[in-house]
Parts: sequence; C-alpha cells; structure tokens
Amino acid sequence: MTVITQANKDRAKALLTQLTLDEKLGMIHGAGLFRTEGVPRLGIPPLKMSDGPMGVRREFADDSWESIYGSRDHVTYLPCGSAIASTWNPELARKTGQVLGSEARGRGKDVSLGPSVNIKRSPLCGRNFEYMSEDPCLTAGQAVPFVQGVQESDVAACVKHFAANSQETDRLQVNETISERAMREIYLPAFEACVKQGGALSLMGAYNLVNDERCCESKTLLNKILREEWGFQGVVISDWGGVFRTRQSAESGLDVEMSVTSDFDDYKFAKSLKQAVENGEISQTDVDEKVFHVLCLMDALHMLNDQAHDDAVRQSTGSTASPSRKSGSYATAEHRASTLEVAREAVVLLKNDDDLLPLAPKTMQRLLVVGANADRVHSNGGGSAEIKTLYEVTPLLGLCGQLGGNVEVRYVPGYQAAKPSEQRATWQKDSLTDGTRADDAADGASGATELERRAALRDEAVRLAGEYDHVLFVGGLDHDYDLEGLDRDDMRLPYGQDELIEGLLEANANTVIALVGGSPVEMPWADKAKAIVWSWYNGTEAGTALAEVLLGSVNPSGHLPESFPIHLQDSPAHKLGTYGLAGHVDYGEDIYVGYRYFESRDVPVLFPFGHGLSYTTFAYSDPDVRVVDDEIHVHCMATNTGERAGKTVVQVYFGLTGTGEDRPVKELKGYSKISLQPGETKPVDISLPEARALSYWSNQVQAYAQASGAEVFIGQNAHDATLRLNLQL
Amino acid sequence: MTVITQANKDRAKALLTQLTLDEKLGMIHGAGLFRTEGVPRLGIPPLKMSDGPMGVRREFADDSWESIYGSRDHVTYLPCGSAIASTWNPELARKTGQVLGSEARGRGKDVSLGPSVNIKRSPLCGRNFEYMSEDPCLTAGQAVPFVQGVQESDVAACVKHFAANSQETDRLQVNETISERAMREIYLPAFEACVKQGGALSLMGAYNLVNDERCCESKTLLNKILREEWGFQGVVISDWGGVFRTRQSAESGLDVEMSVTSDFDDYKFAKSLKQAVENGEISQTDVDEKVFHVLCLMDALHMLNDQAHDDAVRQSTGSTASPSRKSGSYATAEHRASTLEVAREAVVLLKNDDDLLPLAPKTMQRLLVVGANADRVHSNGGGSAEIKTLYEVTPLLGLCGQLGGNVEVRYVPGYQAAKPSEQRATWQKDSLTDGTRADDAADGASGATELERRAALRDEAVRLAGEYDHVLFVGGLDHDYDLEGLDRDDMRLPYGQDELIEGLLEANANTVIALVGGSPVEMPWADKAKAIVWSWYNGTEAGTALAEVLLGSVNPSGHLPESFPIHLQDSPAHKLGTYGLAGHVDYGEDIYVGYRYFESRDVPVLFPFGHGLSYTTFAYSDPDVRVVDDEIHVHCMATNTGERAGKTVVQVYFGLTGTGEDRPVKELKGYSKISLQPGETKPVDISLPEARALSYWSNQVQAYAQASGAEVFIGQNAHDATLRLNLQL
Repeated sequence: MTVITQANKDRAKALLTQLTLDEKLGMIHGAGLFRTEGVPRLGIPPLKMSDGPMGVRREFADDSWESIYGSRDHVTYLPCGSAIASTWNPELARKTGQVLGSEARGRGKDVSLGPSVNIKRSPLCGRNFEYMSEDPCLTAGQAVPFVQGVQESDVAACVKHFAANSQETDRLQVNETISERAMREIYLPAFEACVKQGGALSLMGAYNLVNDERCCESKTLLNKILREEWGFQGVVISDWGGVFRTRQSAESGLDVEMSVTSDFDDYKFAKSLKQAVENGEISQTDVDEKVFHVLCLMDALHMLNDQAHDDAVRQSTGSTASPSRKSGSYATAEHRASTLEVAREAVVLLKNDDDLLPLAPKTMQRLLVVGANADRVHSNGGGSAEIKTLYEVTPLLGLCGQLGGNVEVRYVPGYQAAKPSEQRATWQKDSLTDGTRADDAADGASGATELERRAALRDEAVRLAGEYDHVLFVGGLDHDYDLEGLDRDDMRLPYGQDELIEGLLEANANTVIALVGGSPVEMPWADKAKAIVWSWYNGTEAGTALAEVLLGSVNPSGHLPESFPIHLQDSPAHKLGTYGLAGHVDYGEDIYVGYRYFESRDVPVLFPFGHGLSYTTFAYSDPDVRVVDDEIHVHCMATNTGERAGKTVVQVYFGLTGTGEDRPVKELKGYSKISLQPGETKPVDISLPEARALSYWSNQVQAYAQASGAEVFIGQNAHDATLRLNLQL
Repeated sequence: MTVITQANKDRAKALLTQLTLDEKLGMIHGAGLFRTEGVPRLGIPPLKMSDGPMGVRREFADDSWESIYGSRDHVTYLPCGSAIASTWNPELARKTGQVLGSEARGRGKDVSLGPSVNIKRSPLCGRNFEYMSEDPCLTAGQAVPFVQGVQESDVAACVKHFAANSQETDRLQVNETISERAMREIYLPAFEACVKQGGALSLMGAYNLVNDERCCESKTLLNKILREEWGFQGVVISDWGGVFRTRQSAESGLDVEMSVTSDFDDYKFAKSLKQAVENGEISQTDVDEKVFHVLCLMDALHMLNDQAHDDAVRQSTGSTASPSRKSGSYATAEHRASTLEVAREAVVLLKNDDDLLPLAPKTMQRLLVVGANADRVHSNGGGSAEIKTLYEVTPLLGLCGQLGGNVEVRYVPGYQAAKPSEQRATWQKDSLTDGTRADDAADGASGATELERRAALRDEAVRLAGEYDHVLFVGGLDHDYDLEGLDRDDMRLPYGQDELIEGLLEANANTVIALVGGSPVEMPWADKAKAIVWSWYNGTEAGTALAEVLLGSVNPSGHLPESFPIHLQDSPAHKLGTYGLAGHVDYGEDIYVGYRYFESRDVPVLFPFGHGLSYTTFAYSDPDVRVVDDEIHVHCMATNTGERAGKTVVQVYFGLTGTGEDRPVKELKGYSKISLQPGETKPVDISLPEARALSYWSNQVQAYAQASGAEVFIGQNAHDATLRLNLQL
C-alpha cells in the first residue's frame, strides 16, 4: 500500500519554502487540459493526469481536444467498473488496477482518474457502467485492491467522484439532500476504504452539491470527513470544471483545480486566487497546504529527485539508471491476457432452464445470431471513459473465431441501433452542458419509414429464427445510453428490442438471450426465455469471454453487483420519484438502496443482487459463526454438486439486531470466491473485524454505534438464505 | 503429410459416375468469386477458397467485391513470405502454416491460396514480399513445413504461382524464355518439394507464359512435369482470370478455372466447355479427370460424408458430432502469440558498429523517432494479400508500449509517405490491368509546394536529431511499392528518404536506421550508418517484435533470404536488361540468380544472402563431411563467443565439382538454426540426401546428373566461407 512517509513530508516541506507564489499557483491548477505546471528550477515536474477507469484515454494536445498520438495512442481496453464488481473477485480487481497503473505509467502519467466508486442509486444513471455496485461493501472490496494495483506502478489512483455523484441529470448544479446515515453507510464507505485501506493518493471532488455544499468546496466532505476523520494526506483534484468560486474552494480541502477550457489563467486557482492572496482575502497558508499535498504525492510517486535514495539503489543493483520510478508499459499481450481473465469472470449467467447453455459446437451445424450488439464495439464511447483500444473483439467475432468452420453462422441485425451519435462520438470535456441523445427521435420510431424499416429487420430475424435450431440474440444497451452527462429516460431496452425478442422466442423457444450493458434493463419476456446471459462493457476481449461462456469453454462465475428490478418503478428512488430531477434531489429512500430495500420491503425483483448461475451447482452446509478476539469468523462448507469444475461466491449478509432502529433485513458484510472441482467440498472462512461488521450510523445519537448482534445469512445471492444463524455478543 | 489415399480415390470414382455433365462443370469453375458449385443431392459441397498467404482475406459477397462480414471479418495478420524465410526456422514456417490453416478452416474455407514460392529474380518485383527467397533450397525448406502446417487443419494449401511468376509487369501476357536448367534448378524445385515432401493438395497456375506456353494450359508444366514426373494427384486451380482458351486449358492438367468477374457462365470451363464436350471437340474424359481430382481433394479434406468412418470415430470417442473434419479457429490469442514468435526471428540486424544497439531504455531519457513507417500500418495493402487484421502494432506503438513512461518519445514523420492510393486501397481482383501508383507524381516531388513541404519535414527532423542523444529512423517501403500488379521502377527508397537519412546521420552519427519493406533497397548512406535493422511486413505484432529487437529484450536472429545488391544494376537480370519488360522476357542470367551470381562473378553486395547479426557472436569450428549410406553428413561445432544467449544459422553451401559444366561457386544445400547460451558450444549435424545434394541439370545431356564431388562451405552467410572442405565420392 502506498503511503506518504515522513521522508516525503520532509522533502515536500523543504521544497515548499523555495517556491514563489506564482510557482505554487502553477502547481495547483491546470496548465494543460490534463496537467499542472512544473517548477523546472527545482526539479519539480508537471503533474500529468489521464482519464479514466477503462484504460488510459487518448492523448490530447496540451490546450485543445485534438488527438495527437497517432498509432501509439492505442491502449488496452479494460472491463468497466460494473464488470470488475461482477467478478466478486478482489484479485481480478487488483489485476485490473495493475494493468491500468502500468499502462498509465507507460504513457508517462502520474495520476489515473479512477476508480469510480459512486453507488448505483438508480438503474438510469448514465455513468452506472463506470460504477461498481449498489452496495458499499462490494464496492470497497473491489475498489481497494484496484487502487492498490494502480499504485504499484508509481501512479496515483484518483478515486472519484467524491461524493454521491449518482446522477448525471443537471450534474453541475443538482443539490442532493442526503441523510447523514445514508452518507455514512451507503455513499461514503467505499471512499473511506480506498483512503484508509487502499492508500489512495488522490480523490476527485464531484460536480454536484451535497446538502447545500458544492463537493469541490465542501468543508464537511473535504475537511471534516476526508482530512480530519479519515486522515487523508493525498491530493484532492476537482472534477474538470467543478470549481466555481475561488475563496470557497481555496479554503476547503480541495488542492488542484482542473477544467475543460484552455484559458488556464482564468481558472479560479490562477489569477483570481493570486489576487485574493495578494489582497489578503485568502491566507497563503491555504495555498501552501495544497502545494504541500501535491509535493507529498509527487515524492511518494518518486517524481522528485532523491539523490541519496537513487545512489543507494544504484549501489545495490549496479545499475546506472535512475532507479526511483517504475516505468510501466501499455498495449501488451500480458495486459490483454489479464483483461480476458477478468472478462471471463464478469459474465453473469442469469437463467439457464433445461440446460440450454452452453451451446454445443460439435453437434451444431448452423447458428443464427441476431442483434446489433453482436456486431458492435463499445470502447469508443461513454464519455471520459472512452478508449482508443488496440482492438475490441465483438461477440460475433468471438463466437465465429471460436466456433470454427464446421458451423455455419448467419448474422442478421434484427434491429437498427443508432449510429454513434454526433453527441457521443465527439464527447469530450469541453462542454459541460447536459448531453442529448441524437437518436431519441429514431428510438421513438416516429417516422413511418423508420417504423417500416424496423419491422422489416425484425420480420427477417423472426422468420429466420423459426428455421434454425440454434438462435442467439445479442442486444442490450450501448454508449448512446450508458453515457456520461446523460441519464436514461427509462429502463427499457431501446430500439424495439423487446418486441423483437418476443418474436424470436415465439418463433424459436430455444433462443438464447445475451445482453450487453452497464445498467439493468426491464425484461418483460424473461419468463419465456430459457437462457439469459448478461455481459458488461467488458474490455478488449469482451466478445471472446462472452463466446467462451456461451460455448462452455468457460464456466460462468459472475454475480450481479446490483439488483435487477422487474419494473423501474419498483426501484426505491423511482418509487419515491426522487431520481434524475434537476435542481434538487432528495435521497428519500435513505439507506434503503438496492437490495437493502427489496429484501426489507419484500419487493420481488427480476434477479437479486449477488445472483449468478453456473454450469454446475453448489450447496453450502455446516454454517458457523463465532467471535475470536475482535474478529467475527463466519464459516461454512461449500460443495460442487454438479459435474463441472466451477467457481461459487459465498456471500455473508448481516441483519443487525438490537439497535432499536429501523435497519435493513440484510447487508453484505463479506464474500469469498472459491473454485471447486466436481464433487469437491471446501471449508470457507470469512473473517470480519467485529467493529466494522456490527457498526451502523445511529439516527438516534447521530454517531456510529455497535449492534449487539446480527442475524447471519450465508447464501449465493442476497435473496438466497438457506443458511441462517444468530450472532449475539 | 496429407496424401490422397486409395480410399479417397475409390469414393471419388464412385461419385464421379453419378454426376451429370452440368454438375461436373459446376465443380470445375467459379460459381462465386471464391467458390465452385456443389452437388447437394450427392452431399458434395462447394469448394471454398480464400486469399492469401498473410492471413485469410476479408469475406466478399458471392458475386461482387463487397465486404460482407462486419466485425467478424478480422483475422490474425501473419508475417509475409519473406519474413518467414528470414527466420531460417522451418518450425516457425510450420507454425505460421498451422495458424493460417486453422484460421482458414475457422472461416469455413477449404483451400488457402498460398504459400507463394516464386523465386525473387529481381529486387523490383511487386510481389516479392509474398515470396520467400532468391534461393530454391531455402524456399523449399520453409515452404514445405508451411504447407504441412496449413493442411493439418483439413485445408488444402494452394502453392502458387506455378511457375516463374517473378514479375508483375505485363503479368497476363508476358512470355518468359527460361532455360530448362534454370527451370529445373531455380524456378521449379520449391514447387516440387511442396508437392513431393509437403503433400500439397493444390497448386495455382500462373498468369504468365513460360517458353511460349500459358501456364494455365501448359502441357509441359502441368502434364509432363507436375503430373507425370512428380506424381501430383491434387487440384490445379487457375490464378483468377488466368484461363484464356477453353480447349487448351481443358486438355491440360488444369482442373479448376477461377476468375474475377461474376459472369460465371462465361467462364471458359462453363458454357464454352459444355458446348465443346457436347460437340465432341473435347473428350468428357478430360472433364472427368478434373472432377476426379477435385473429389479426391475433397475426400482427403473430409468434406464428403463418410458414414462408415464417422460411425467408427463416434463409437471410439462417444461423441455424437460429425468427427471427420477439423473445425479451426481465428483471431485468437494463441494465433497472435505464434505470429509474434515468427516476427521476432524475422527481424534482421544488418549492421551494428560500436554496439549501438540495443537501445538501453534504463539510461535513456529522451528518444527521437523519425519516419512515416514508424506510425503506419501495412496489413491493409499489397493486393490479394491484404488483410483485415484485428490489429497491427506499429513500430511507434511497439516502442512506446515497451519503453515506459520514464522515456520521453518525440515523433516526427521526417517525410511524407503517399496516402494509401485509390489504386491500392481499392485493390481487388476485379481488374487485371496493370496498376499505376497514384503517388508517382508526388514521389517525383515535381510541384514546388510539394518540394517545400518535403524540405520542411526533413529540416524539422534533422534539426531535432541534433538535439537528441538517441535518434531512431523507421522508414522503408510500403504497399504502394510492394504491390501486386506493379513492379517498382527502381531500387531506391521513395519519398526522399535517402536525403533525409543523410541529414539525420550528419546531425547525429548515432542515428539508428530501421527499414520495413518486402524487397531490397539501395542504401547509399550505409557506410555512414552505425546500425541498420531490417524488418518485413511482419504481421499483427510487427511493431512489438521490432521494438523488442531495438530495445534488446529479443536478440535478433533473422538472416536475409536474398542478397541486397549495392546498386540495382549489379543485379544479374538488370545487368542484362531483361527484367520487367512487357511482351517478352529472356531469363538470360540462367541459374545465376542472386548469390549464385554475386559469389560466382565476384560482384560485391551491400549485404550477402544469409547475412544477419546478433547481439552476441558465434564461431564455427571442427568441420567435417562424410558420406554414410546415401546421406552426406556435414558437421561442425558452433560456439557462442559473446555474452548473450542467441541463435545462429549454420549454412551449408556446395560448389559442385567434376561436372565439366559452368556451375555456381556456391549453392545452399542445407541449414540449421540453433540456440546457444553464452560460452556454450554445440555440435551441428546437417544431413543431406546424396542424390539431391549432388544433383544438377546437365546442359550437355539435358537431364539430371550427379556431380562427383563438391567444395563444401560452412558459414554464417553466403559470402562467409571460414570453413571449407572437399567432398570427393
């Protein structure tokens, strides 16, 4: 874990005293779109940053959004945050972070803008694909190793967006009213874990306001909670264009102002702050503190010359090179192999009646593939998470590449997805107005011609589906819907896919439904479909991984990191009508987000949080829970009761008891993913620090309190509760 | 090795008797641009073919040159023929063939149109990049395992272009006068080896005429030599549009006519042949023989139902699937890894004074990269060998991806390469007129503006070269020059590169010169350059392999498969003025092609055939040659005398003695590539069948004869002759 040491601080202090005010200011605001100014006379380099969590973003000119890197701009495209969470495998999260850190360093970057750990409050959030989960324990469990992985390469992770950036609608102005309890239990824990367990060296302040305070000037968030309570010593960077007022941001715990325009002198922390300091309106101490944070981070990343250390390393290694800093690499075969590993465990088998899957290529002669997402790449969209990938394997390519020439594959689109819209293709941070979807009209299919065209595509696909024994539909969302700056309007599949799927299932009841997306969708046809597979924006080898699962060379082991409601209105924020509003949003559901709501209020869901099938089956037995020292040990035996090797995720939920407050029936406290051979039984032990596992934010005392006990659930998803125990201290 | 068995023949015969004339004719001419017609009632499928040796070409509509496969069209891009030869490693040739065969089968193909084994008679041939070498022994040594590798996947290799398709100028009409000796010793041996040792199931008849006979109607080539002398039982397919006359082709050993237009009924083997058979002008026996060949090939590839065999396999494996035919795969990580292995051994270190290479990334702070080929992909050009690759790593991406973020890389083009010309970008086989280079005018830099632009690019690069400690130039040719249908005009580097390189070397004597191309170029600045590296069109991971060699993580082991003359006019065909003429060409240099000429006539070359340096050094000692039974055993000890592990290629040349005829001083007879640790010595034994090693075509008796002895040379290239022995029978 990267930490800021006393030596870092000593060096930072020594340098700080040598800096002029102009030099200091240059270090705390953008002097390029993705860098600050360095101080060459003291060997202080610029701080170079890059989007984003799914890979290192393309290289822009210093002062414009022009791409400048030609063929060397291609990087490895990583599975999105939801996919990483969907693995429920912290080691794969670490591996993803390691790839990102190495690629960022390989591109000369100092700060990688991610992971994105905001809680998925609603299925409609445009950035849900970047986020991990509706649950803070799973988010923290995956984000912490991700941060550690990134920082292994001497690159700072920048955990974003602090805090509660859970909607895109009016994102620059929306003021969110959130209870202290919801902040402490739902919206902050992943950040806290990234700081305290992950050692994150930087955080990004969000655009939105929380409880009347702009996040990039919030004394509550940045000073009280982050700095004082959590002891954060790293750098807080504003989201690009997130600083609106000089004094308020300068006096908060924010350190570095970044924005989207090239009028760098007009940034608040430039001329305006200089004037305020010179006028005595703002103390130079405030500026010094920010610069100190930046220098500490730089030194922790070995960015500052350290002659003594360098000499020592040289002596011990015999090298003449500067030994201080890792150098990284990008677009390598090793990185691609890592992303494939992650992608494989991210695919979720939602339903598989009659063992319809896996498809058996050896007995199959013809396969009909339907759906635009079979033939579409996604890496080039989504907003700041867009990637210029070296390549992206589509599901169709993955399937055909693996199936071999003895199976005749016929592909028809079945529906017309919007062409990447102007708005999306040119998305960049030079405009902070909300986006609009160019294809909204087309999706409404208002024109008669458009309706005829859609019907013709559908009719062709449905007719063919009746003629084939094997039919696979690959649809879902794309980055015209999972898109920074724009929430979805509803939870339905776009482009008339529902009607198409109904038709396919009617024509051929064995049609396999595979969906790609970053957010849940309604599936009105779910009862009729025998097999449903969910994939995410799953990186460079997305189509390979999906094909491997469909064809059975990989046994699926992904589990949903969020509940899939039946209808949007089942979702708590939407039931209350408090999601996606402009101006002001009340997080009225409080801590009852996702399964905390569905399980506590007995609202049925399409697929519960934590759900994921396998081509084998598992059974858990012999549950036990005991407290030893300060640890709660939860134990069970897990058995592979089927006939294939596979992986299961043992999930531990607590329902806290004795609190005297209204609490969720279940809250995830820990999980463990294990491999089991057919017939094999393994003991599973999950240790939870007592203080954390029983802690809750008490509404009564407005402080953290400890529950006296808990109902303990061990199961394969949030709704599965075959094993129950009582823990009483 | 794939062979046509008696069982294949029996089944073919049985089917033949059931076919109507129309069905037969459908099987021997194109019914789609890349397929024949099948006979569904008898379970005979169409025969599906695909270009080309560097990967499976994109999928076209049946009757037009429209691409139809969307995202599944992306395949693995393989190193070109010259690169495969440059490895001097038969196992890597086999591996490349295995990848190609698997990808072809994975795409449902039956015949893969390659390898291209024509001899490189001149540096100017537009298709030299597809071809392997100027030497028949090296070509055969690499092509035979390539063929075997392809055919492992139940795909027929189609060895092309039979024969002597060594120029593109007037390729449809040129009549080549070639001595029997040159045919037998230079132009035919690789074909013979592919047929007799490789078991090639098909061959492609060339466009050109040899000694007044069109290759696709040549009774000498197809009937006498191929069928009678070599016993070829496979299928001869015409080059696309290579059949001009019905009767002559029908009565020759040609089996299948393919062409470039969709007027399939107008093909000579369609309506025209039907009429001729019905009129009694052509015997139905001729047609039957062709169909028989096609059926034998199909059965050897398990394309015809074989119920008995299938049942037996099912019984022994318990599978219910059709077990007969391999299924293949494409665009897989395994295939990419194989091509990288090949690419690594294909890069040739031509010169390395002062151990300027490898670059040492740990001590380097800045690197200047100059040259358009650093930032350019090549897979999408060249003619029928064009590939829609999943991706192609450029040298710039390879370097930056591996160097890491501690080295600042600056890239400037230095010169302007032509944009892929209309002619090239749309190259396809729908036009058989000779090509023209769209950028010829630009290359001449006739316009003043163009000249100014060129000077500005050059000046910028030269100025920067003086400011950097480390400068790398990456230039060479591209597929506007290495191009099917068009020979080069001269052997110079295009786009003013020579002048640029002179400038760079003057500004910085340590400038490393790396060239990418498929044919030799003149290097007037070679004396001034300390380090010169040669790479080929080297596949999907070309830039990775080049960067690994430049940065030293791979020790180069490629050796030139052709001589690099100093001047074009040194080259024998050009000295005689008999290359690239329209109408008629006299192969007046006879067997004195390449090093056979340079070594025999003492003409100095820039780099000799077989040349290739390493980052270590090798020495050979203890030579011995003896005859045991019918084998000539050539032996030596090889020692790694340097400080790095590396690979050396032990090359054995014979100068036949006692023939009483004018013979080359040296002819390659065998080679062996071996790995040696620093200081390690290994014995090297190369066994040569006596009959083949001492055989020559006697001008006096116009038949093969055996020499009574040979001067034996063992060395690291054709000019290196440190070890000499006399062999006397």
